[in-house]
Amino acid sequence: MDSRGFREAATATIDEIINYFDNLDSRDVVSRVEPGYLRKLLPSEAPQEGEPWADIQRDIEAKIMPGITHWSHPGFHAFFPCATSYPSILGELYSSALSGACFNWICSPAVTELETIVLDWLAKILGLPSCFVSTGPTRGGGVIQGSASEAILTAMVAARDKYLRETLPPRPSNPSDAEENAREEAVALKRSRMVALATTLTHSSAKKAALILGVRFRAIRVRAEDGYALTREALAAALAECRAQGLEPFFLAATLGTTDACSVDDFAGISAALETSGAVPPPGQPGEVWVHVDAAYAGAALVCPEVQRQTRIELISRFHSFDMNMHKWLLVNFDASCFFVRNREWLVQALSVNQAVYGNKASDGGLVTDYREWQIPLGRRFRSLKIWFVLRSYGVKGLQEYIRRTIKLGEEFAESLRSRPDLFEIVTGPSFALTVFRLAAKTEGASLEERNALTRELYERVNAAGKIWLTSTELDGRFAIRLMTGVRTTQKEHVETAVKTLVEVAQEVMRG
Amino acid sequence: MDSRGFREAATATIDEIINYFDNLDSRDVVSRVEPGYLRKLLPSEAPQEGEPWADIQRDIEAKIMPGITHWSHPGFHAFFPCATSYPSILGELYSSALSGACFNWICSPAVTELETIVLDWLAKILGLPSCFVSTGPTRGGGVIQGSASEAILTAMVAARDKYLRETLPPRPSNPSDAEENAREEAVALKRSRMVALATTLTHSSAKKAALILGVRFRAIRVRAEDGYALTREALAAALAECRAQGLEPFFLAATLGTTDACSVDDFAGISAALETSGAVPPPGQPGEVWVHVDAAYAGAALVCPEVQRQTRIELISRFHSFDMNMHKWLLVNFDASCFFVRNREWLVQALSVNQAVYGNKASDGGLVTDYREWQIPLGRRFRSLKIWFVLRSYGVKGLQEYIRRTIKLGEEFAESLRSRPDLFEIVTGPSFALTVFRLAAKTEGASLEERNALTRELYERVNAAGKIWLTSTELDGRFAIRLMTGVRTTQKEHVETAVKTLVEVAQEVMRG
Repeated sequence: MDSRGFREAATATIDEIINYFDNLDSRDVVSRVEPGYLRKLLPSEAPQEGEPWADIQRDIEAKIMPGITHWSHPGFHAFFPCATSYPSILGELYSSALSGACFNWICSPAVTELETIVLDWLAKILGLPSCFVSTGPTRGGGVIQGSASEAILTAMVAARDKYLRETLPPRPSNPSDAEENAREEAVALKRSRMVALATTLTHSSAKKAALILGVRFRAIRVRAEDGYALTREALAAALAECRAQGLEPFFLAATLGTTDACSVDDFAGISAALETSGAVPPPGQPGEVWVHVDAAYAGAALVCPEVQRQTRIELISRFHSFDMNMHKWLLVNFDASCFFVRNREWLVQALSVNQAVYGNKASDGGLVTDYREWQIPLGRRFRSLKIWFVLRSYGVKGLQEYIRRTIKLGEEFAESLRSRPDLFEIVTGPSFALTVFRLAAKTEGASLEERNALTRELYERVNAAGKIWLTSTELDGRFAIRLMTGVRTTQKEHVETAVKTLVEVAQEVMRG
Repeated sequence: MDSRGFREAATATIDEIINYFDNLDSRDVVSRVEPGYLRKLLPSEAPQEGEPWADIQRDIEAKIMPGITHWSHPGFHAFFPCATSYPSILGELYSSALSGACFNWICSPAVTELETIVLDWLAKILGLPSCFVSTGPTRGGGVIQGSASEAILTAMVAARDKYLRETLPPRPSNPSDAEENAREEAVALKRSRMVALATTLTHSSAKKAALILGVRFRAIRVRAEDGYALTREALAAALAECRAQGLEPFFLAATLGTTDACSVDDFAGISAALETSGAVPPPGQPGEVWVHVDAAYAGAALVCPEVQRQTRIELISRFHSFDMNMHKWLLVNFDASCFFVRNREWLVQALSVNQAVYGNKASDGGLVTDYREWQIPLGRRFRSLKIWFVLRSYGVKGLQEYIRRTIKLGEEFAESLRSRPDLFEIVTGPSFALTVFRLAAKTEGASLEERNALTRELYERVNAAGKIWLTSTELDGRFAIRLMTGVRTTQKEHVETAVKTLVEVAQEVMRG
C-alpha cells in the first residue's frame, strides 16, 4: 500500500468511523452471534498474494461488525465504561505512525517527557497529594500502564522488594557464593511468610497479582452496614490474625469505587489501623505495609473538586501508590491506566534489570527517566499523546462537565427506581453513576432464593431484548443488577428508556 | 470535537503521516534534544478551557517531533526494528474507534474470534508444529500479548502452576482451614526450591519474570565456540548442578535469535538433555521442565520455508510455548506479541480468577474462549485487526519477499566489512539481518581494553553524526557494534551509506 492507496483507504475509514458513531443508536448494543460464527466466514489460511484494500474494508461491516459489542453505545450500562473519543482516536493515529519500542528515554525523548508532564497535569487535576507529582517533595511520579491489573501487579512487586530490603540484613557488597546462597535462602523463607491483603469487594486483579507473585492472599470481609467499605476495625482484626498465624502483611489494596458497589474504603480508618495495630510496623517505619489505592473507575470523578472533598483524597498522602484508568470514564480509549507512586525509586529498585544492549549515555548518566524500570514489559507505545489530546481538547472544565452529567444521570435513574418501591429495591448507590438494585419482594417473607431467581429473570429478559446491556453481581448472597450511566453517548432520554424497559419487564416478572 | 471537526482533523493528520513517511530520510534518525527539553515548552498545568484542534496539531511538528527517534527511518540500525506499515495503522484506527475492554468473548465476540483465527493463520505461516494451532491435537492455541516480556512472564506463571500441581499432592475438594494452611505451607516450601533457567544471552525479560515471580534464576554461560547457543552438554551440567544444590528446575527459556548475537539455541540438544539428564523428570512426565521458545525478533523469518528448515522448527513440538513479535520485524506496529502454547488449559488453570460481575452464559457454559484467562491483564484491545490487515495486504509472499530482502541486506553489509579486514572484524553473524562487529586490531597484540576503547570510539562517533543509529553490546568482554538491516524503509543504498560512514570513521579512529 503506497501513500496514495493509504490516503484513499484512511479517508474511507474515517468516513466509516464517523458514520459508526453517528448511527450507533440504531445497532443492538450486544453482539448476537453464536460462538464460532467468524470461523465459518473466513478462510482457514492466510492468502498467499496480497489483497486489495477494498476487499478488506468490505469485510469490516460484513463480518466484523456483527461480532462487536458496542461499548460506546448509549444503552451500554454494563461493567464500567471503556472510553473512546475523537481526540483520543487522533492520538492513537499519530502514535501508530510513530511506532517505536520506547523503553528508554533516548528511544524517543518526547515519549518519556510528554508522559511525565501529562501525568503531572493529571495528578493536579485529580487533587492527588503533591507526593505523587514528579516535581513533588518525595521523588514521586506517574507512569502509564496498560491496565489496572498491571498497575497493581507492579505495585505489589515493588512492595515485596521494599519489604524484603527493609526487613532482611543488607546484601553484602561482594558476596561469596556461600553468602549468595544464604541470602537466597533467607529471601525464600521470608517470602513464604508474606501476605497481601484486600477485601471481599476488591477487584480480582489483586488476587491475580498475589497469585503471580506467589505470595499469600487474604480477603477481609466487608459488610453492607459499613457501606461495603474496609473499616479500621476490620483491618486491625485482620492484621492481628495474620500475625497470630506467623504471617507478615506487606501489602494492602484499598479501593476508591469497587466494581460491585462503587464503595470507597475508609482511608482515615486504614491509616489509623496501620498506625496503632501493633501487628505491623507503623507507616514510615521499615517493614511498613504498602497501601495501593485502586481507583480504576471512580478515580476519574476526582476531576471534580466536590468529589475530592467528599472522598478526602488528601488522606492518601500516607499511602504508597494510586491508579486510575483514563480509558474507563475519562474519554481516552483503551489503554491508559495512570499509575502514581510516592517514591519512584521503589519501582526502579524492584524492576531494573540491565542488559548491555540497552546502555546509552543519557541512561548511564542518570539524567533521564527510563520507564522500562517502572513497569513489567520492556517496550512501550506512545500512549501519552492521546491523553494530551483529550486533556487539551476538553479542558478541565469539559471533563468536569462530562463527569457531573453522568453522575446526575445515575442519580436520576436511582430516583426513578425509588419512585416504584412496588417493583425495585436499591441495594447500594447511586455511587459514581452506578446503581445496584434488585426486584422488590413479591410477597412479604419471600425467600432469598425466590427473590434472586426473579431478579435474575428480570436481568436476563432485559438483556435478551438487546436495547440496553446490564451486568449483575452478588452482594451478601443477594443477586443484584448493576446499571451504570457513565458512557459518553448516554443522555437523559436513554436513561428514561432504560427505566421504562425495566418497569415493563419487572411488571411482567412480578405478574409471574 | 464533533463529526465535522473530526473529519477535518483526521484528514489533516493523514496528510501529516504521509508527509512524514515520504520525507523520513531528511530527518536525523535519533533525537538530539537535551533531557528536560519538553517541560520548557509546555505549560505546567492542563488548560481549564478546551483548545481548538489546530493549536494542538501545530504542536506535533513544533514540540513533539524534535523529541522523536525515528524507528522507521532507513538509517535505523539499532536494537531490532519496531515496525509500522500503512495497513497496520488502519488496523489501529478501527481498533481505537471500537474501543472496549474485551476480556470475555461476549464483550465483543469478533475480538476473540478474529484473534484465534489470525493466530492460527500465523502459526501455519511460521511452520509451527500443529500442537500450537487452536484446532490442533493438543488443545493448543495463540493469544496476542503486549510484549515478549509479558509472554515469558505468562509462560513462567503457567509453568510454576503446572509444576506445583504435578509435584504436590492434589488439593482436597473441601479443605478444612488446617488442610488449607498445610497446603499453603507445602506450596511455599516447594516454591522456595524452584529455579528458572536461561542463558547468559537470553533476553533480560527472563530474569525479570523470575524476579516478579519470586523464583530463583540461573543463567547458563554460552560460548563463542558454540555460536553462543545453549548446548546439550551445558544444559545437562546446569541441571545436575541445580539438583546437587537441592533446587528444582521447572522452566527453561530457549531463544531463537538472541538480542546480542541472533544465535539460536540447540533445540535437539535441549530435548536430549532433558530426556536423559536424570536430574529432572523427562519430557511428558509430571514435574517436567517447561521449555519456552523466545523468538521475539527472529521468529518473523520463519515465514520463509528455508528458515523453517534451517532452524528445524518442527523440533519445538516437544516444548511448551513459543513467542514472536509481529511488531518487530513483521510490519505490524507495536504491540503485537504472538504467544502460542501447546495446551491452553495450562494458562487457564494458572490465570483464571473469577468475579461475579464477569459471569455470563457463554463463559459459564464453557462454549467460548475468554482471553482474560490467558494473560496477566484483564482488559484487552482489538489487536488482531492490524495483524489481519497486514497478513491480507501483504499476503504470505509479500512478507517472505520483505524478510528475504532485509536478510540479504545484512549479508551484503557483512560482505562489505569482510572486504576490509584492515578495518573490521566480524564477531558474529550475519544472522537474521544482524551483524556484530568490532574494529580490527591496530597492531598485533593490542590489548582487549585498547580494542574495546577504539571500537567504542568508532561507535560513538558514527552515532554522533546522526545519519544512522547503531547499538552496542559486549560479548565475552569484547565491546562490539550491532548493525541490523530489518527496517522496512532500509534499501541497498542506505546500507551502502552506512558502510561508507563506518569505513570513513574507522579510518579516522585507526589513524588515532
